Amino acid sequence: MTKVSQEVNEITSTIDEVVHQRTRLGILTVLHEGRKVDFGYLQEALGLTGGNLSQHLSVLEKSGLIRIEKGYEGRRARTWIASTRAGSKALRDEVTALKALVACIEQSGK
Amino acid sequence: MTKVSQEVNEITSTIDEVVHQRTRLGILTVLHEGRKVDFGYLQEALGLTGGNLSQHLSVLEKSGLIRIEKGYEGRRARTWIASTRAGSKALRDEVTALKALVACIEQSGK
Repeated sequence: MTKVSQEVNEITSTIDEVVHQRTRLGILTVLHEGRKVDFGYLQEALGLTGGNLSQHLSVLEKSGLIRIEKGYEGRRARTWIASTRAGSKALRDEVTALKALVACIEQSGK
Repeated sequence: MTKVSQEVNEITSTIDEVVHQRTRLGILTVLHEGRKVDFGYLQEALGLTGGNLSQHLSVLEKSGLIRIEKGYEGRRARTWIASTRAGSKALRDEVTALKALVACIEQSGK
């Protein structure tokens, strides 16, 4: 077994599909800027339908990675979304895994 | 809309879930070393059941990213798997997207 073959499983087995899935990775990246954002902002930023965004937010909320608050701005109903501490940590862990994987792929192609 | 919010969709929308899914990313990484490997080798390297590995190989083969050859080594039936040119390109594109995403996340956390 080559070194790359040994390393790759150590890396990919630490990847959490809740975070790794491309749309959820996009959501967590936007939230990583540290502000709470509203539903419409996320929808526009990521080019998603409301239904699709809702589904991904629900997965992230169930895993404790985001916090969803419903409220009003004036008379308009709004939904605010923010990353939790666990969400920030999960994104940091994902970045660590992605960097290790990229290094592994670039090494394996030599 | 912030710069990160604008960039993130450009990046994540180029990500192909066929390649991005963690197990398939692992398979393509092992194959990226340029050798054809046998089914048992991949199974051991990635710590997968035969059924699980078969399912992921089938997804990759349908997308033209790998080539599967069945044959014999002596009297023993063997299944060989190799990356195609399209598979190598797909992995390179994924690496490009992952690097851009990591840069975006590291910038957004500042």
